[in-house]
Amino acid sequence: MTFSATISVNARAAALIEKLKAAATELKVAVSRGEGGETLIDAGSATQGSIAAGLALAEIAMGGLGALQLTSSTATPHWPWTLQVYSANPVIACLASQYAGWRLTHEEGEDAFFALGSGPARSLARVEPLFETLDYCDAAKHAALVLESFRPPPREVVDRVARACALDAKALTFLYAPTQSLAGATQVVARVLEVALHKAHELRFPLERIVEGMGAAPLAPPHLDFVTAMGRTNDSIIYAGRVQLMVTGPAADARALADQLPSERSRDYGLPFAEIFKRFKGDFYAIDPMLFSPAQVIVTALETGESFRSGQLNLRLLDASFS
Amino acid sequence: MTFSATISVNARAAALIEKLKAAATELKVAVSRGEGGETLIDAGSATQGSIAAGLALAEIAMGGLGALQLTSSTATPHWPWTLQVYSANPVIACLASQYAGWRLTHEEGEDAFFALGSGPARSLARVEPLFETLDYCDAAKHAALVLESFRPPPREVVDRVARACALDAKALTFLYAPTQSLAGATQVVARVLEVALHKAHELRFPLERIVEGMGAAPLAPPHLDFVTAMGRTNDSIIYAGRVQLMVTGPAADARALADQLPSERSRDYGLPFAEIFKRFKGDFYAIDPMLFSPAQVIVTALETGESFRSGQLNLRLLDASFS
Amino acid sequence: MTFSATISVNARAAALIEKLKAAATELKVAVSRGEGGETLIDAGSATQGSIAAGLALAEIAMGGLGALQLTSSTATPHWPWTLQVYSANPVIACLASQYAGWRLTHEEGEDAFFALGSGPARSLARVEPLFETLDYCDAAKHAALVLESFRPPPREVVDRVARACALDAKALTFLYAPTQSLAGATQVVARVLEVALHKAHELRFPLERIVEGMGAAPLAPPHLDFVTAMGRTNDSIIYAGRVQLMVTGPAADARALADQLPSERSRDYGLPFAEIFKRFKGDFYAIDPMLFSPAQVIVTALETGESFRSGQLNLRLLDASFS
Repeated sequence: MTFSATISVNARAAALIEKLKAAATELKVAVSRGEGGETLIDAGSATQGSIAAGLALAEIAMGGLGALQLTSSTATPHWPWTLQVYSANPVIACLASQYAGWRLTHEEGEDAFFALGSGPARSLARVEPLFETLDYCDAAKHAALVLESFRPPPREVVDRVARACALDAKALTFLYAPTQSLAGATQVVARVLEVALHKAHELRFPLERIVEGMGAAPLAPPHLDFVTAMGRTNDSIIYAGRVQLMVTGPAADARALADQLPSERSRDYGLPFAEIFKRFKGDFYAIDPMLFSPAQVIVTALETGESFRSGQLNLRLLDASFS
Repeated sequence: MTFSATISVNARAAALIEKLKAAATELKVAVSRGEGGETLIDAGSATQGSIAAGLALAEIAMGGLGALQLTSSTATPHWPWTLQVYSANPVIACLASQYAGWRLTHEEGEDAFFALGSGPARSLARVEPLFETLDYCDAAKHAALVLESFRPPPREVVDRVARACALDAKALTFLYAPTQSLAGATQVVARVLEVALHKAHELRFPLERIVEGMGAAPLAPPHLDFVTAMGRTNDSIIYAGRVQLMVTGPAADARALADQLPSERSRDYGLPFAEIFKRFKGDFYAIDPMLFSPAQVIVTALETGESFRSGQLNLRLLDASFS
Repeated sequence: MTFSATISVNARAAALIEKLKAAATELKVAVSRGEGGETLIDAGSATQGSIAAGLALAEIAMGGLGALQLTSSTATPHWPWTLQVYSANPVIACLASQYAGWRLTHEEGEDAFFALGSGPARSLARVEPLFETLDYCDAAKHAALVLESFRPPPREVVDRVARACALDAKALTFLYAPTQSLAGATQVVARVLEVALHKAHELRFPLERIVEGMGAAPLAPPHLDFVTAMGRTNDSIIYAGRVQLMVTGPAADARALADQLPSERSRDYGLPFAEIFKRFKGDFYAIDPMLFSPAQVIVTALETGESFRSGQLNLRLLDASFS
């Protein structure tokens, strides 16, 4: 994170938002203004949205620090269309920006709202405990937040985000799409690298040692049922995601990280995610957090040049989930 | 097609044409002016052309609404270099623009000419019956047409296109390359998604339900003989093309579409296309139109989240054709 | 090479260098000025650098005439991240620019320096015998040189390059990264197509007949030991690189080229490169030059439409080298 000082994930996102707005019609997103003057970009709720819109949301969520691409792959032959992502700044891109860690709730009446905020605004607000271990902060004049949601945030949430970012609501952009939409499914699957970074953090691997990351996972077909849709996006990563990290520090640490990182090391591995979720009666926090990780990983220790690999794709479970 | 109102395929193509003209030397295309002031871009007749020029022609033919890429794939191991394309606007990109449906003939004397016009100018002219079922029209001040041809169009054809588009010939750009050229072979194989869209239309699948499309097919090695070259580009799609469509509406319709869409459902499936063509004594219209489709398809019904798949790659026939 | 007259590889590189400088922080490269006013870009010596920086170096080394991409591939399942490159101007891109053929030494004292210069400046200086068979020269006002080196060039070498290019040192940019770095490993593996072009030249295949080239090879994990790192980048190409060339002229020549081109035709094929290097006691010039070539090739003869293939990937040796 030596280089973080002068990178502004929100400034980078702002440039990508301008591109997205200019392409709104062909990407089938709708741009409007909220009550507080905030920019609202609907990428799959009242609009059709698109896979390309989901790629744009993912790029914005990563603060412009991830290279994303839709490609055809034989790694998952039944589900060939695959999202690839790589970043030379995986900690900032994935954890300081893309991770959906900002809990935004508003409990009152018919305006009740719940969403997990993702994206560069988090690095301005820095309200999450995760930022205690991230020595990155942004100082941009604009902020962007991606929400896996059917609805734009209510006024109270907008104001809360504005205050936390020390910005006027007019300087905020909220991009939202439900998990059930094309863009929603796409932007979640694009988290394959982020999920690896977050689990590395949970495993207490020193984040500053992760200098490069690449990931790939198959595009999940959307589903109108929320739990099924969420299950598919998770299964894409848990049963078919693959990630390579390049790390500094002792090779023994890299080996230990590779050993623990794949999803198969989790107690709850082995069922489509929607079934696991139902078993735990919808209590997300009862699910083993170690489940949220790619199926297959390679960790390369730059200090010795060794690469450690573990985990494997589970095409049967992928089929069970996506079919 | 809800979003079509403000998309101009010709305006988008015009921007891509400027890029192509700026890159003319390295893409080995020749830019000139015709008698009527029309812009002529030779991408493989008197010039060498290139694969990259073919990609540019395909992008222009799709009115800038398709993301195209050359990539290496193990799906067809003997012919690894593969064209990929995806579009959030497959009906406009493929049918209102890319489909080679505008029959342009001039019968008189040594200037006799025949070519099928492809590209965004078709959406200005709207002279084909296909446009009765497409609720898209363009209103640009420029028009572009791609021709699979050794020659630029004669004056009479240029004038006819200008009249049909209600534009001066000076506002027209014709891009041409024979099937035998690198650019010609490339831009035809890039039709893998369009072919699926067109067959869906032939099967009377409601086009407005097709909201997303992705396709891939191996780059056909060019051949100096026209029938062999045409055969190879067709075989790339018929025996090794794969497409995924995302559709709205009843899942039963998606299932029926997937069932009928692959080339193997055609009466004439099973021989290299050049041989089929010769069997029918070169009478294109005697060949089963259902043959013109990808080898393998997935149709995802957004209403139920189900994906239906059918067809398979035929690597033996691909080898027979390309070798 | 008919089209070479108006292509300036140095002008194209200059535009890419501006982009790289603007992205210096996120690509983790350091930009400075040397004593003579030359621009220095450190992409992996005192800085961490990145894979993306290596891609930028490779694009600059090819004078902006190669399309490069990092992608996930199942061709080498243990080492999925793969570099792809294609060019419609492979002779200029690879031989007149990318080939590391300019021997730059300075023998005096503690400033002693040795590096092989690569990139577009070579086409301004044209001091290598190779240029006797290349009818391309550049006439740009700026020049760029890529060095596989831990150090920037000493003043004497800068001045020598400036004189050879007939430019002031202020007009020069030197980009350097050691083989051991992420960017270094990346930019060397990106030579998979160049290596095929250079061997074609060694085999006396007429270069003007090579009109199109594509290549792919797996990203080599960096290693801190120079010989191991160099061995890995070479093994990526020798044991897992694949190239397709499209050539004009008699098909028999294309067949002969395909037959001779793969690395397996070399006397020294069959061991990890680092071991071969040690066997020859580090004497590079004792190693069979025919070893430096891709594992698998396809040569397509445009004159007959035939494609000739030979060689194969050696995944076992790839594992032996990369592990």
